[in-house]
Amino acid sequence: MHDSIESSTTLARCHSRNARHLAGIALAMLLPLACASAVAWDGLVEKQVFEMDAYTTVSGETIAPLRVGWEAYGTLNEEKDNVILITHFFSGTSHAAGRYAEDDEAPGYWDAIIGPGKPLDTDEYYVIASDTLVNLNAHAPNVTTTGPATTNPDTGEPWGTDFPLVTIRDFVEVQKALLESQGIERLHAVMGASMGALQAYEWASAYPEQVERLIPVIGGGVADPWLLATLSAWAAPIRLDANWNGGDYYDGEPPLDGLRESLKLVTLNANHWQWANETFDRSWADKDADPTRELEARYAIEQTLDGIAASRAELADANHLLYLVKANQAFLTGHGESLEEGLARIEAPTLILYSESDLVFAPEGVRQTAELIEAGGTEVETVTLEGKRGHLDGVVAIDQAGERIRDFLAE
Amino acid sequence: MHDSIESSTTLARCHSRNARHLAGIALAMLLPLACASAVAWDGLVEKQVFEMDAYTTVSGETIAPLRVGWEAYGTLNEEKDNVILITHFFSGTSHAAGRYAEDDEAPGYWDAIIGPGKPLDTDEYYVIASDTLVNLNAHAPNVTTTGPATTNPDTGEPWGTDFPLVTIRDFVEVQKALLESQGIERLHAVMGASMGALQAYEWASAYPEQVERLIPVIGGGVADPWLLATLSAWAAPIRLDANWNGGDYYDGEPPLDGLRESLKLVTLNANHWQWANETFDRSWADKDADPTRELEARYAIEQTLDGIAASRAELADANHLLYLVKANQAFLTGHGESLEEGLARIEAPTLILYSESDLVFAPEGVRQTAELIEAGGTEVETVTLEGKRGHLDGVVAIDQAGERIRDFLAE
Repeated sequence: MHDSIESSTTLARCHSRNARHLAGIALAMLLPLACASAVAWDGLVEKQVFEMDAYTTVSGETIAPLRVGWEAYGTLNEEKDNVILITHFFSGTSHAAGRYAEDDEAPGYWDAIIGPGKPLDTDEYYVIASDTLVNLNAHAPNVTTTGPATTNPDTGEPWGTDFPLVTIRDFVEVQKALLESQGIERLHAVMGASMGALQAYEWASAYPEQVERLIPVIGGGVADPWLLATLSAWAAPIRLDANWNGGDYYDGEPPLDGLRESLKLVTLNANHWQWANETFDRSWADKDADPTRELEARYAIEQTLDGIAASRAELADANHLLYLVKANQAFLTGHGESLEEGLARIEAPTLILYSESDLVFAPEGVRQTAELIEAGGTEVETVTLEGKRGHLDGVVAIDQAGERIRDFLAE
Repeated sequence: MHDSIESSTTLARCHSRNARHLAGIALAMLLPLACASAVAWDGLVEKQVFEMDAYTTVSGETIAPLRVGWEAYGTLNEEKDNVILITHFFSGTSHAAGRYAEDDEAPGYWDAIIGPGKPLDTDEYYVIASDTLVNLNAHAPNVTTTGPATTNPDTGEPWGTDFPLVTIRDFVEVQKALLESQGIERLHAVMGASMGALQAYEWASAYPEQVERLIPVIGGGVADPWLLATLSAWAAPIRLDANWNGGDYYDGEPPLDGLRESLKLVTLNANHWQWANETFDRSWADKDADPTRELEARYAIEQTLDGIAASRAELADANHLLYLVKANQAFLTGHGESLEEGLARIEAPTLILYSESDLVFAPEGVRQTAELIEAGGTEVETVTLEGKRGHLDGVVAIDQAGERIRDFLAE
């Protein structure tokens, strides 16, 4: 089916669910429905879409229809008990591993640990990654997940701010429906970074009997006041852009200037001064425009951050960013009365990975989260990630924890 | 002259320069011109103004006339060798100590260490604090310092972005002229926090023979790439506000929304998650407006930060903020080819105070600054400030270093 498919050296598997296979119906029809000779995942993926006719949010509002993107790596076994769910960060998508095409510049964000023989071994596990609702990258070619930029069939217009506010718990509920559509009732593990960690905590707290292992990365059990304020700062530039127009801009110019500045702040906050000071110097963006002499002239680091932000803004939607800010701010594990109560419901052995130089999720809050889960009698291990990227080390330097993750998954 | 004046218990002094006395000419005329019975500084100050007919910037442009505010605490001695210059931070003014009126809510920002018997003992030292050029608080009642919001007498209109870009070195040159107008030729010490530290480094590097002691607080010898980017983020909200209009807004509505968001970022970056998480919780700003259910509803920490920013924005000018961003970004001690060269020129024994949890000036950069000054053979001591405010501990928790500062000044 593909030149690079390797024959599996491990157990035979049924129902090969290589995402690419499922996507191409013609190919899928060629696959025997019963147990086939197994194939290792070849590293190529295709975005899948799960659709619900209607979804009612936790707060009681209806989104109809609802679409959410997902990808999978590896094969679901017959017992359907080899599932690892991957939940993504604020600016991410469900593209956690692999490439859409062999010449893709970069693979999914956690490709270092997901694949044949890797810590999340696709020869053993069925690794499924799901978009969140209101995915930031509404205009990315592989994202069709529902949010404010989606056309509301009732009006024929984009939802805009009529779209219901959603929470991390809503993200979990949609993922649960996605898994159920594949007959999956329990998770060998749930693992996610940053906003993905929030979804992972929520999964383990809301459905303790269905989550066997919990691996939150660079995230705590609650949006603490520091995070509330940080997220507020991320939202501000969009609101300052006159084109935002209270969220009603789908007929005109989108608030791209504001969106770019928002994403610049996200990039900066998710990094660390160690990264900035080792990666850049005081060079000018343009050797003929001295930033000490011209108000509009910039330094190279400003140009680079502006460039990153501009690329990201092209794929993103401003209202989606504001909705994600709201969802993150609203987060309290269990969405109940207290953090203690929400975390005490977690029964899954937990491996928390975090960075002491994280500027988004205060390390103190992560350690407190670990203590509160342990207080309920659950086993928790915390592992610090080393690096110079601060928060981002949980994404770009995850490989350092690979063997610990592999062992944890086998325990 | 004032009910609360206490008679001095120390040496007699000449030329009492209590700022209040100088400000009221009628009162000043009552003072004997020769050595009078000394009075201790009573804690009340009045803003003074130093004016130059014209000032030519380091880059060769003329500002005419130029005004800069200043305050002084204590008495200049006959030898004029008891002078400590205080240079202020980004959002500050020369109001470093004392009160303008007895019922002022708060005294100047370093009142904890400046006053009779305090570490910067006004019974011994003549402590003089100077505004920077383009002081942020252009609309504060006690600020008349020249900047883009000042009327350019050549046009009868505010300078706006026709005002020359200025540097930390320009701030120093204006302060030097101010001191010379009082016959002061050398400084017992120069001390400043944050942007004030930059001015202090520059003083000691540019005029090593005139600076006897250097006390930089929460600042390094250069605007490193992290600071370049942070400052860039502070400027962005103003530029997003349509009212900014490329800096030309003095005939219309000022870009207050953008200015507020800029100042909110300044407040947030200058603090630390320890402060946010111990000072606030997840309370709502309005008990009837659930921020998880309404896009426009906020949390209490957002409301507080917005409120602080709004108060500060009323006194500030958006172009002044952008000019200060530029001046800070441009900073490299000595403004020469290299940091090594600029810092090697410093001969004054140096006491550096900084915070390991500073999110604005990377502690690594401060330590490197200390090493480079020492490499030139100059004695440097670094002292870490403890606290939960990050960068701001250099302002609000300076008292913890008071005795070390007192001793250093006496060495």
